[in-house]
Amino acid sequence: MATDGPRAVPAERTKVIASAAEAVAGVRAGASVMVGGFAVIHGWPNTLLRALAEHGAGDLTIVANTLGFGTHSPQVLAERRLVKQFVGSFAGFVGRPTTSEQQILAGEIACELVPQGTLVERIRAGGAGIPAFYTPTGIGTVADSPDKERRDFGGRPHLLEHALRADVALLRAQLADEAGNVVFAGAQRNFQVAMATAADLVIVEAERIVPVGALAPDAIHVPGIFVDAVVAEEVSRDEVMAEVLALGRDPTRGGGGAAPALPGLSRELIALRVARLLAERQYHYVNLGIGLPTLVGAWLDQVGSHAQLQAENGLLGYVSVTDLNGWDANYYNAGGQPVAPVPGSATFDSALAFTMARGGHLDAIVLGAFQVSARGDLANWKLPGVGAGGIGGAMDLIAGGSPVIALMEHTTRDGEPRIVGRCSYPLTGLACVSTIVTNLALIDVTADGLVLRELAPGVTVDEVVAATGCPLAVLGDVGTMAL
Amino acid sequence: MATDGPRAVPAERTKVIASAAEAVAGVRAGASVMVGGFAVIHGWPNTLLRALAEHGAGDLTIVANTLGFGTHSPQVLAERRLVKQFVGSFAGFVGRPTTSEQQILAGEIACELVPQGTLVERIRAGGAGIPAFYTPTGIGTVADSPDKERRDFGGRPHLLEHALRADVALLRAQLADEAGNVVFAGAQRNFQVAMATAADLVIVEAERIVPVGALAPDAIHVPGIFVDAVVAEEVSRDEVMAEVLALGRDPTRGGGGAAPALPGLSRELIALRVARLLAERQYHYVNLGIGLPTLVGAWLDQVGSHAQLQAENGLLGYVSVTDLNGWDANYYNAGGQPVAPVPGSATFDSALAFTMARGGHLDAIVLGAFQVSARGDLANWKLPGVGAGGIGGAMDLIAGGSPVIALMEHTTRDGEPRIVGRCSYPLTGLACVSTIVTNLALIDVTADGLVLRELAPGVTVDEVVAATGCPLAVLGDVGTMAL
Repeated sequence: MATDGPRAVPAERTKVIASAAEAVAGVRAGASVMVGGFAVIHGWPNTLLRALAEHGAGDLTIVANTLGFGTHSPQVLAERRLVKQFVGSFAGFVGRPTTSEQQILAGEIACELVPQGTLVERIRAGGAGIPAFYTPTGIGTVADSPDKERRDFGGRPHLLEHALRADVALLRAQLADEAGNVVFAGAQRNFQVAMATAADLVIVEAERIVPVGALAPDAIHVPGIFVDAVVAEEVSRDEVMAEVLALGRDPTRGGGGAAPALPGLSRELIALRVARLLAERQYHYVNLGIGLPTLVGAWLDQVGSHAQLQAENGLLGYVSVTDLNGWDANYYNAGGQPVAPVPGSATFDSALAFTMARGGHLDAIVLGAFQVSARGDLANWKLPGVGAGGIGGAMDLIAGGSPVIALMEHTTRDGEPRIVGRCSYPLTGLACVSTIVTNLALIDVTADGLVLRELAPGVTVDEVVAATGCPLAVLGDVGTMAL
Repeated sequence: MATDGPRAVPAERTKVIASAAEAVAGVRAGASVMVGGFAVIHGWPNTLLRALAEHGAGDLTIVANTLGFGTHSPQVLAERRLVKQFVGSFAGFVGRPTTSEQQILAGEIACELVPQGTLVERIRAGGAGIPAFYTPTGIGTVADSPDKERRDFGGRPHLLEHALRADVALLRAQLADEAGNVVFAGAQRNFQVAMATAADLVIVEAERIVPVGALAPDAIHVPGIFVDAVVAEEVSRDEVMAEVLALGRDPTRGGGGAAPALPGLSRELIALRVARLLAERQYHYVNLGIGLPTLVGAWLDQVGSHAQLQAENGLLGYVSVTDLNGWDANYYNAGGQPVAPVPGSATFDSALAFTMARGGHLDAIVLGAFQVSARGDLANWKLPGVGAGGIGGAMDLIAGGSPVIALMEHTTRDGEPRIVGRCSYPLTGLACVSTIVTNLALIDVTADGLVLRELAPGVTVDEVVAATGCPLAVLGDVGTMAL
C-alpha cells in the first residue's frame, strides 16, 4: 500500500453536533441511509429523520427493518417522496397501508425484501470487512432468487449473501458520550450495533448526552470509534406516544383481536393448547411469532410452563404488558407489542438474536400460519394480492432446525383448507413445521405425512378430515385436547 | 422435519453445578474443547481446567487463542499429555518455551494456526448457523493454504473460511446468575461470547454467582440461553498472581526489554518518533502491536497526541500501568501487559475488536516487524527455525486497509538488513506497510518503492542505504527526525 499521508480525523475532542440539521447537511441525493429502529412505532431516530426530510435530498435508498408507520418513523421520508429504494424485511403491515407501501405497490419505490436475520448479518458483514457469507435462511422462498448462488454445507443447501453498507446511518440511543460511545436501553439495540459499523457517516441521536467518562466501559454497546456525530433528541418519547394513542393503535391489544367465530376452539383456546404443549415438552427457550402466537404467553403460568420467551428484536425473558401506565416503551416484542422484562431477562442486538435462531439455540418456535403443507412447508408472510408483505424474522427463525409449532385457523373464513398438499401462498420455509395446532385439531408432521393426534372438544375426526386439504392419518386413538 | 417430540431441558431452574469435577464429568476422550481466555496469564477458567486435567479424558482438541503459560492456563492439559490437537493463534511465545510448544514441535500435538480475527469469526459463525464466510485476512501467508478456496470481491482476493464448533466450551466470567446469564469485566470477554454460542456443552466458571434478577438486562454479555452450567471459581486471582510473580514475569515490563545497543536511536526513541507521527497525522484510533510498539503509548501525552489505543483483545482507550498496586487484572493489552482504562474507554469482545480492524475502522496500526519488503510486505510473526510461532491478530489488523506503521530495528544483531527486496521470513501480509520507522531512519513505502524521508540524528544517508537490503530512493532533502 502506498503511504496514506496525513488523514483527517476530528481535531475536536467532542463529536456532539449542535443540531440535527447540521448533522445531516452533507447527505446527498441518491445516498444510501441505514435507519435504526424496529417496529411500527418503536425507537426511530425521529429528530434525525425529521431533519433529513427537511433537508430534502431525494432518491434515497433506505436500509431498515421497515419504513414504519405514522409521522414518527421513516414514513416522513416517503411522504416527501424522497425514497427511491427500500431494503428491509417489512414492506407493509396487513390492514395498515402506509404511504411507503402505496409507493412500493405503485412501483415508485423499488423494494428488496430481506429476511430479518439475513439483513442484520449482511449489515454486520459490511462493517466487519466480510464481503459475503453463506446462510440456510430463505431456501425455497422469495429470498432464494435465481441470481443467488446456492451451495450445500453438511448436505443442506445454503445461499451466498453479500455484505451491505451505506453512506449514512441514523441511529437512536438512550445515552451517548461526547466521544461517541453509545448505550442502548431495552430492545433499542436491534439493528443499530451492526449499522453503526457499516456506514461511512454514523450519526447517533441520544435521549441524553453525557460527558466522556460517565459511561462504564463494560456497559457500552457501541464504542465511539464507530460513531461520527452525536445529536440531542428533540422529538420526545411523549410526543411519539401521543401520536400512537391518537391513531387509536392500542399497543396492548393482543395479536389479531376479535374475529368471526369458527367451529371448535377460540383463538385464546388454541393458544392455551400450545401453552400446554410447551409445558408438556418442557421447551424452555421459545420464540412466539407475530399474531396468534402472542396469545400463548398469557397462559404459561397457568399451565406450569417455565418457558422463557425470546423476541428476535433482542429480548429474552418477557411478559406482556396490558396496562400502559408505567410501561417502559423500550421493551416490546417482535410484533411491536408492549412487554416487560422478567427476572433473568437479557437484552441484545438483532445479530445475537438471530445467532440464537439460526444457530438452533431455541427449543421451539411458535408461528402463525396462513398455510401449512403435508410435508410441513410453511407460508405465513404474505397473502397473495394483499399489500407488499413483510418477511420479518420467520425465515431465519425456522432456519435453525428447532421444532416449529404452527398455530392457525384450520380453514379460511370461506371454509377453504389452510392445511394443504402444497402451499399456494408465498413460502416462509420448506419442511419446517413439526406440529400444527388449530381450532379443530392437533396434528403432527411426520416423515410419513400428517398424523391427527388430538381433536378439539366436540369436533369429530370426519370434520377435521373434511376441513383438511391433504391426507391426514388417524393412528389408533385420537385424544381430546387438554385445555 | 419430523416431530421432535419431548425434548429434555433441565427441569431445575438453576444451572449452578456443585463442583467443577461434576461439570466436566461428561467430557469424553477425543472431545473438542473451546477454552476462553486470552494471553499468557490472563483470564483462564482455571478451576474448570484443573478439573478437566484431573478428569483425565485424553486426545482432546483444544480451541483457544493460545495454550497459555504456567500452571494457571491450558498448559495443565498439555502437561498431562491430554491434548491431541490445538487450533488457535499462538502456538508459542518467543523465549518462553512451554510444554505444549515442545509437544507441537515434536509432532505430538497437531497444530492449526488461525489468525485471531478469523478464529473468533469462525467460532461466531459456528454458533450462528453460518457455515462459511469470506475474509481478506491471511492472503499470501501460511493461512492461505492451497486447500482453501480463494475468490475475489471488489477486485481483492479473499479466503473461504469455515465455521468452527466444539463439544464443550470452558469459560470464565466475573458474574453469572443461576439462569446462566453472564457478565464479563474489562478484557475478559475476548473469545468467550462467541465460544458460548458454539459448543454443545457450555460451562461458565464465575468469580461470583448471583440470583436470577440480580443482573441488569442491558448489562448482560451472554444471555443464559447459551449457557448450560455455572460453577463457582475456586482458583483465585490471588493464586494466579502469586505464580506470575514467582515466575519472575513482571507484567509491567515494556515490550522487548533491554537489548544490545544498535546505532542510531534507542528502542524508546524509535517509539517516540512513532508517537510524533501519530500526532502529526492526527491518527485518533490506533492499535499498537506486541513488542516494540507497546513503548509508543508512554510518549503520546508528551507529543500532544490524543490517540485512543485499541487492543484487539477487546479494549479501546487505555494507558499502560507500571505499578501493579491497585491494578485491575482484567485490563491488559494484546501483549498481556497490564493497562488501565481511560475516561471514554470501552470494552468489547474479539469479534467486535476485529470488526474494527478488518472493517477498516482503525486510523493506524503500529506493528513490530522482523522484515519489511520493498513493496511493503510484512513478516512479523515467526523467526524461521525458532519455536512454533504465533500468528496473533496482526494478519487481521492489516487486512482492513488502514495505514500500517512498521516499527523495527533496521538490521539484525548480526548486521543483516531487515528491510529487504523480498521477505524470507514467514509473511504476515502483502503490500500492507505504509511507513517504516527504525533506529536509523523513517521510510515511506510508495507505489514506486521505498523513499527515505528522515534520518536519525547522527546517521548518514550512506549508512542507511548500506543497512538496507533493497533500493531506497532519496528525493530532495532528507530531514532529521524530530524527537
